[in-house]
Amino acid sequence: MLNEKLLNELRNTNPLVLNLTNTVVSNYVANGLLAIGASPIMAHTKEEMAELAQIVSAVSINIGTLHPAQIEAMRLAGKTANQHNKPVILDPVGVGATSYRQQVTNELLSEINFTAIRGNAGEMAQLAGVDWQSKGVDAGSGDGDVVAIAQTVAEKYQTITVISGEIDYVSDGNTVISIANGSPLFPKITGSGCLHGAVCAAFAGLYSDSPLATFVSACTIYACAGQIAEKPSMGPGGFTTALLDGLATIDSDEVAKLAIINTL
Amino acid sequence: MLNEKLLNELRNTNPLVLNLTNTVVSNYVANGLLAIGASPIMAHTKEEMAELAQIVSAVSINIGTLHPAQIEAMRLAGKTANQHNKPVILDPVGVGATSYRQQVTNELLSEINFTAIRGNAGEMAQLAGVDWQSKGVDAGSGDGDVVAIAQTVAEKYQTITVISGEIDYVSDGNTVISIANGSPLFPKITGSGCLHGAVCAAFAGLYSDSPLATFVSACTIYACAGQIAEKPSMGPGGFTTALLDGLATIDSDEVAKLAIINTL
Amino acid sequence: MLNEKLLNELRNTNPLVLNLTNTVVSNYVANGLLAIGASPIMAHTKEEMAELAQIVSAVSINIGTLHPAQIEAMRLAGKTANQHNKPVILDPVGVGATSYRQQVTNELLSEINFTAIRGNAGEMAQLAGVDWQSKGVDAGSGDGDVVAIAQTVAEKYQTITVISGEIDYVSDGNTVISIANGSPLFPKITGSGCLHGAVCAAFAGLYSDSPLATFVSACTIYACAGQIAEKPSMGPGGFTTALLDGLATIDSDEVAKLAIINTL
Repeated sequence: MLNEKLLNELRNTNPLVLNLTNTVVSNYVANGLLAIGASPIMAHTKEEMAELAQIVSAVSINIGTLHPAQIEAMRLAGKTANQHNKPVILDPVGVGATSYRQQVTNELLSEINFTAIRGNAGEMAQLAGVDWQSKGVDAGSGDGDVVAIAQTVAEKYQTITVISGEIDYVSDGNTVISIANGSPLFPKITGSGCLHGAVCAAFAGLYSDSPLATFVSACTIYACAGQIAEKPSMGPGGFTTALLDGLATIDSDEVAKLAIINTL
Repeated sequence: MLNEKLLNELRNTNPLVLNLTNTVVSNYVANGLLAIGASPIMAHTKEEMAELAQIVSAVSINIGTLHPAQIEAMRLAGKTANQHNKPVILDPVGVGATSYRQQVTNELLSEINFTAIRGNAGEMAQLAGVDWQSKGVDAGSGDGDVVAIAQTVAEKYQTITVISGEIDYVSDGNTVISIANGSPLFPKITGSGCLHGAVCAAFAGLYSDSPLATFVSACTIYACAGQIAEKPSMGPGGFTTALLDGLATIDSDEVAKLAIINTL
Repeated sequence: MLNEKLLNELRNTNPLVLNLTNTVVSNYVANGLLAIGASPIMAHTKEEMAELAQIVSAVSINIGTLHPAQIEAMRLAGKTANQHNKPVILDPVGVGATSYRQQVTNELLSEINFTAIRGNAGEMAQLAGVDWQSKGVDAGSGDGDVVAIAQTVAEKYQTITVISGEIDYVSDGNTVISIANGSPLFPKITGSGCLHGAVCAAFAGLYSDSPLATFVSACTIYACAGQIAEKPSMGPGGFTTALLDGLATIDSDEVAKLAIINTL
């Protein structure tokens, strides 16, 4: 399931990724995309979305600090990307936390065909319409059947689901793949999930005959970069910079050696 | 005055802190709160403030990049928190710099009961209505009677004042406590004051029979984390990451050993 | 062309710089300005621009995440600065990427006299009205006559041009100076160009009888700080913090020793 050519292809082609993301993580997401070899465009104004969505390889939409002026920009970017067959990734940050986020997410899901949806288990449970014991915006920890949630969301929205956590799960509705790489420091820094979604978008813009393999590869590379970054880190502060260095230096051989991928 | 149980309690309960903060520091504040053990929610839209303010342990309001759309969100968050007896902290960044900031701060102060107000000496002098020779938005250095300012602001607004600087001062209007910990690198990085305010909010959400001791403890822990972070830092860049590591690793024993607290 | 006194003068006077910048880089720009010794004010609301532009030494306007509400603030800040003879720097980020950015940049250029315009070669080619093969918002690499572009933009807008890249070019329309310092890690981190523009603004606020020498000095100091920061960096993550440390610790002697400046 690991497509070993994609990392080099990303670094050779430097795909442009349009990010409509939250103000908390925009710097880190841009640096993370640069580190792995993509070319980030960070923008959030409806006035330029139709133009930008046409020139990029992929679009990443993240509702982390959602506000009214963004919504029209998100709709325009997503619809334009759909019209031009560009992949669009949704990151429904904290969708279960407020009715506003639920309502806007539902609107986006009804108007845009998302290539993939990335979230933690609690956010994905919310989209699946199943119970989940979660805490706060970023809390992905909780209790529930993650595999079933991955399949349900993929079927319901005809998309690929990427569930981040101690173990990542990727599903196209039929198959569910687990990736047991990563670091306990990931949830200790803000934006590690948002960057994961943006990295998925960067890979989604590359050619691949298996979308499932593309996202499994993106998740594995990202998780392994974190695993490598953990060692030199004294704590979450050091991890923020070491993860960027890990994304910049990791190569296909390291990923192949570290990867723990299973088909469930 | 140091409540040695609070740091462990914070790490055991991971209190949710709602931050309406400025766009410059939102990433750093979120990372700092995660580092010390709290769960940050960063949001700024009025559409979801009433819901969010009810589910969190405390609210932190920071006017650093104030703009009109934020004000209603701040009012809603503050009033909802008041109605539900959640602590609300105000950080009146640069309140003396423009008449707009003064006016909005006065409105917030008249409509919301703040549990504490955190600022540098210049900002607090502005709230106290006394002269202060300050320079710029972040400049806390100047000349004036800081102890009197701490008492005046606490009395005037029936709140606890936290004045950050080379020496921190905390007052409930009667007692003034000084904390002589910290690092000269604090004012060399942006957001160190804003994170201080957010950390005060995180502690304010914990149970304590002495609010004064709660804020003295928050200030001391934060200042000592900076003191520890200074050593491995080559300059302000290294300090930004080392402070996060310090907040994540500092324990109650280290704080007790380093603390220099005096009742004035 | 290197004015060796300016770095110490900046550190002695800590000039206030008003930054209307994009949300992606605002934290990094503030930290970079603090590191080199300036006092950043980050603001973006029209309600306080006229007041702020009067009390600062210089204004830096950056269109990286342009949105409608910012434009009036930018116009007010720029015009006020012009009226009070404060330098104003324009950073036309991604001006060629969308018609919206072109239109707003044209409006700003017609209403405000900019002391200097800083951009990469692709952005400057767009302002010069010449062809340039560029890719994406941040891409400064491409093919064209950079020296001619530097002169054309300076003449057309009666300004000083600062073109960032592997080699920087500074021109007043007559003379073109090249600076061959820097690091290949600069384009690997987001905001390194935006911070360059802000550093130019910080120096522009100092007294100097040669504006050309002021900007050549600012560029050289910034590029040399990056050169020094490259060594201890494991990658782009480490470079983000090492550049801040480099800006804080570099002295005039190091700059004089490293500087590779040529008049073309």
